[in-house]
Amino acid sequence: MKQFEQIPIDELCINTIRTLAMDGVQQAKSGHPGTPMALAPMTYALYTRFMNYNPKNPKWFNRDRFVLSNGHASMLQYAILHLAGYDLPLEELTKFRQWGSMTPGHPENHVTPGVETTTGPLGQGLATAVGMAIAESHLAAKFNTPDIELVDHYTYVICGDGDLMEGVSHEASSMAGHLGLGKLICLYDDNHITIEGKTDLSYSDNVEKRFESYGWQVINIGDNANDLDKISDAISAAKAESGKPTMIIVRTHIGFGSPNLQDTSTVHGAPLGEEEIRLTKKAYGWPEDEKFLVPDQVKNHMQQFIDAGKVKENEWNALYNSYKEKHPELEKNFQTALSGELPAGWDSDIPEFKAEDGAIATRQASGKIINAFASKVPFYAGGSADLSPSTNTLIKSEGYFSKQDRKSRNIPWGVREFAMCTACSGLSLHGGVRPFASTFFVFSDYARPAIRLASLMKLPVIYVMTHDSIGVGEDGPTHQPVEHVASFRIMPNLCLIRPADANETAYAWRTALQRKDGPTMLVLTRQGLPTLDQSKYGSAKGVFKGAYILSKEKGSTPDIILMASGSEVSLILQAQAQLLESGIDARVVSMPSWELFKEQSEDYQKEVLPPAITKRLAVEAGVSTGWHQWTGTEGKIISIDTFGASAPVKTVFGKFGFSVENIVEKAKTL
Amino acid sequence: MKQFEQIPIDELCINTIRTLAMDGVQQAKSGHPGTPMALAPMTYALYTRFMNYNPKNPKWFNRDRFVLSNGHASMLQYAILHLAGYDLPLEELTKFRQWGSMTPGHPENHVTPGVETTTGPLGQGLATAVGMAIAESHLAAKFNTPDIELVDHYTYVICGDGDLMEGVSHEASSMAGHLGLGKLICLYDDNHITIEGKTDLSYSDNVEKRFESYGWQVINIGDNANDLDKISDAISAAKAESGKPTMIIVRTHIGFGSPNLQDTSTVHGAPLGEEEIRLTKKAYGWPEDEKFLVPDQVKNHMQQFIDAGKVKENEWNALYNSYKEKHPELEKNFQTALSGELPAGWDSDIPEFKAEDGAIATRQASGKIINAFASKVPFYAGGSADLSPSTNTLIKSEGYFSKQDRKSRNIPWGVREFAMCTACSGLSLHGGVRPFASTFFVFSDYARPAIRLASLMKLPVIYVMTHDSIGVGEDGPTHQPVEHVASFRIMPNLCLIRPADANETAYAWRTALQRKDGPTMLVLTRQGLPTLDQSKYGSAKGVFKGAYILSKEKGSTPDIILMASGSEVSLILQAQAQLLESGIDARVVSMPSWELFKEQSEDYQKEVLPPAITKRLAVEAGVSTGWHQWTGTEGKIISIDTFGASAPVKTVFGKFGFSVENIVEKAKTL
Repeated sequence: MKQFEQIPIDELCINTIRTLAMDGVQQAKSGHPGTPMALAPMTYALYTRFMNYNPKNPKWFNRDRFVLSNGHASMLQYAILHLAGYDLPLEELTKFRQWGSMTPGHPENHVTPGVETTTGPLGQGLATAVGMAIAESHLAAKFNTPDIELVDHYTYVICGDGDLMEGVSHEASSMAGHLGLGKLICLYDDNHITIEGKTDLSYSDNVEKRFESYGWQVINIGDNANDLDKISDAISAAKAESGKPTMIIVRTHIGFGSPNLQDTSTVHGAPLGEEEIRLTKKAYGWPEDEKFLVPDQVKNHMQQFIDAGKVKENEWNALYNSYKEKHPELEKNFQTALSGELPAGWDSDIPEFKAEDGAIATRQASGKIINAFASKVPFYAGGSADLSPSTNTLIKSEGYFSKQDRKSRNIPWGVREFAMCTACSGLSLHGGVRPFASTFFVFSDYARPAIRLASLMKLPVIYVMTHDSIGVGEDGPTHQPVEHVASFRIMPNLCLIRPADANETAYAWRTALQRKDGPTMLVLTRQGLPTLDQSKYGSAKGVFKGAYILSKEKGSTPDIILMASGSEVSLILQAQAQLLESGIDARVVSMPSWELFKEQSEDYQKEVLPPAITKRLAVEAGVSTGWHQWTGTEGKIISIDTFGASAPVKTVFGKFGFSVENIVEKAKTL
Repeated sequence: MKQFEQIPIDELCINTIRTLAMDGVQQAKSGHPGTPMALAPMTYALYTRFMNYNPKNPKWFNRDRFVLSNGHASMLQYAILHLAGYDLPLEELTKFRQWGSMTPGHPENHVTPGVETTTGPLGQGLATAVGMAIAESHLAAKFNTPDIELVDHYTYVICGDGDLMEGVSHEASSMAGHLGLGKLICLYDDNHITIEGKTDLSYSDNVEKRFESYGWQVINIGDNANDLDKISDAISAAKAESGKPTMIIVRTHIGFGSPNLQDTSTVHGAPLGEEEIRLTKKAYGWPEDEKFLVPDQVKNHMQQFIDAGKVKENEWNALYNSYKEKHPELEKNFQTALSGELPAGWDSDIPEFKAEDGAIATRQASGKIINAFASKVPFYAGGSADLSPSTNTLIKSEGYFSKQDRKSRNIPWGVREFAMCTACSGLSLHGGVRPFASTFFVFSDYARPAIRLASLMKLPVIYVMTHDSIGVGEDGPTHQPVEHVASFRIMPNLCLIRPADANETAYAWRTALQRKDGPTMLVLTRQGLPTLDQSKYGSAKGVFKGAYILSKEKGSTPDIILMASGSEVSLILQAQAQLLESGIDARVVSMPSWELFKEQSEDYQKEVLPPAITKRLAVEAGVSTGWHQWTGTEGKIISIDTFGASAPVKTVFGKFGFSVENIVEKAKTL
């Protein structure tokens, strides 16, 4: 359009982003226009002056990653992705926040090409990006050679006040500084506005000092959010610092350009309104009544970056071919890591545990299992929230991942459950790493928002949660999970497995590693459990089906079905024997995973739990909720629906009714 | 004992604490001896040189509060409480971590006199203390007069590396600095050791700089953890700074005095072993084979502090009497605040909502209700995690609590859900405040560890959780709770109420405010709901009973029972009418709170849900788990067991099956 000829092309592009965001939110009558309007310049600078990407192949491995941690500014991301040539037609921007569109309310990685991670819940984008940066540095150390830098990209983050107020930003940033993640570059949208009003209502951190305390480089460019050169200089300085992550503080103006609403909380989470949009467009030198307008000049200008993206990927592909030629072994491993395919025989060293070896805690069995497959699955990596000696998750052949040692696969997360789990999502999203995270089960609560987001994204992260019930014993109710098994069974896409002994633990691990479409949570005991005799009882392979007949009734139909998961399974086995002495013929069903059992055919489910047998007793050292679907109306449940208590494990188990005696008694009342 | 005569009395007392901790852990064969050995001097300094308390009345209102945030060092607290004259006999210390003892694994406020809050889950002690300090400053502003400082105490915290790594420490400390809580004094146990080894494995924050960035005074006394004078000077300097909280950094030595284990992670979480205990006692100049020894010199020495405590409380009581005389009105209000008793007629202004007034979101009704009782319940105070305009929780007659305005009751928590909820526990524990906390329901996950601890402590905190289902609409699955209602119904001691309309919301609030033995969670809609005609349907008073017959069948027995909570109740009401047209006579049961319903008599439960009626259909815009206990084996459930999607509310509800049409259809299949 002629009227645009006077406007410098960069400004024109930036205002296109702004107006698309305004129009998208207005059309949806819902959303957050103010932040896109403020952050359009820095986003534009990233996508045109710095970032390597090929919009025609959003999954090109060596692309720079971009994370919009303040995900409510989603229209900013949609607008730039559209302009940058991703497969996101303008029409989709007009369907912002509508059913089935590619432009949901908050960015979702499965929905929109170029969106690296689902964001919205504040603070987590930043922590996810830390995971991505860890993955990059780890893979670079493992695969780059003196002659070829195969893995070499940056991770960029934009975040806001809300992100930085959230605790997870502290955990993740502290971790990033400690690890010296030099290729992590964050831009902070310092707009002085929150939903309730000015930030000074609730927030007065000295962000500069705070991030310096974490060991970050901090660059404050002041009130220059529209100055592309100042922004670019800061990003260049960030790239020049290879030993520290960088935080670039930018004083921004929410709703920039809106004559009446700039710098107000009004423009944060609601459309500007038709009239204010017209006024704002006028201020931009924009045709006031045009909607979703992308000027031809902008399209033409952006084409060079689309073209450049192809060239960049082609160059890398050439590099890759030469790498393949010179380092065939490494290249093979690299491909394996990227595909995540388990090598043949990966589980061949996992031992079969023998009944005569005596009691072993499932966390201990798990430690043996991990160390039996870890060398064969070289892309398996992770760690615990400062509890590895207790959760038994250390890969013994490896050191700790650190600033000096980027190759080792044990990641020392510190006492940072939330950042650990969020960063694991970042590791998984990045690719090349199959991450696990571990802590005491009760502290899964600290990481719950991250586990939810991983479930929403269907990431195959493995959570190793030990100390799984009142069996924790002496540490007492603050450390004894009671409601936790139930609380994760209800999380969509998550597969929870609570194995009954060492061999079930081995099959739980097999399930976890083979699963690709969502997280798996292994729930393991602190206390020793007898190893069930594989020659006498149903094979632990039954774990694959979620539930199976562990010990059949003697006659043709059982009088009663006893069912349990985890540490209570050996109790119902003993109860079965005692009941038989009283002439009651019970079936024992082990139910390590409801999710897997529900995936089985109805026939199999009925084979394990015949509908005709309505006398059923479930035993679980956790809340009863949910068990009714298996016990039915006539069944009974031995559970703990209160908090636990501090005492040795045998005492606690006995006092709360988890004894063979009590099980037998309750079974008889049926 | 004669051999102690050469040892200075302070050192003798300190070594008594150390040896009691070593002996307690050894006897239990479980626990954490190293930290008590390191922190005995600072704890001793607090209890003998600074803190005001009367061990004979641990609940004396104006006492200084002490919080051991690193709760695993519980033996430190038990040892000092015993020496300081609390009702904690030596015998109880010998029963550390045993069933029914007063010395559980981690400190529990309901179990041990002098323990102000349950700690153990890291970071939360510090955040709870922030709440206590807020309460103190608020009450001081409300009740102190120019002549009488009735409310005037400090809140002391000891915390460790683990506390400071946790995200909640960031949120709470940022908040404390922002609010300038000058009477909050924290001592940081900088021992360079974590469970996995040296802290430098995972942690290199510059703690000094970090806390300065929050606006704290920071005093670093270096490697002087045994120097009572240096510790005391620092605490004095902390008290002298009235405008900022203070962090005192102390380089400590875990397992201090143990010849072979000092400064190792070995001594963190396991007994020292008999032999090492002997060697350590020898190093202290202690009889090597004595266990749980409190020398007479120590007993005699400590008596003066016990006596001083009585004097201090008596002085305050005298002050109180003079206050009562001079300011009778204030004193009355002060007593009301402390008792937490609701004044007569407190709820008389809560409106009855009329059907003809049209649809209203329960969050909006809640906002009206809050403002109808807030002036009559002057001790009700709290706020939201930067969402008050959306959660409708602002008390309109009040300003925001701040550094300048300590009286106002709206607390601006910022985007800090976890610190908000933890601090609310602190407000509740302190007394004089009835706290509430509010955010979007989906972000309850961020605060889950705090809500759990409040439930364990049975604190009557009120959580106002709005935007309660996929009814959130456009914001999409990151913001749509699905599993959350179920996840809190299973938390022991928590009462969840999900009201169906404005009038049920009023009774939900009445329930919440009248409840004293645990937290209440109100789960409210974003979207408007029709107000159910009170003249036509069962009274909303039924909320008190958790579930009630909202609309009876026409005949003498129903063909089917339809049950729901919250926004789905009006759908089943409409379905009832449509079913009747097809000759199916349904009963409609509103089930806002399972917890309350379960507390009712079996007769009442059977009256509402007659066992003979096995055709039952439950409808809830949340996961199905748990509903089987009400629908029974033959019943059906319309639920959402996947994540939601971004689109306008009506679309989302319809697509996921929450329509009258679908309910009628499903009901007919029964």
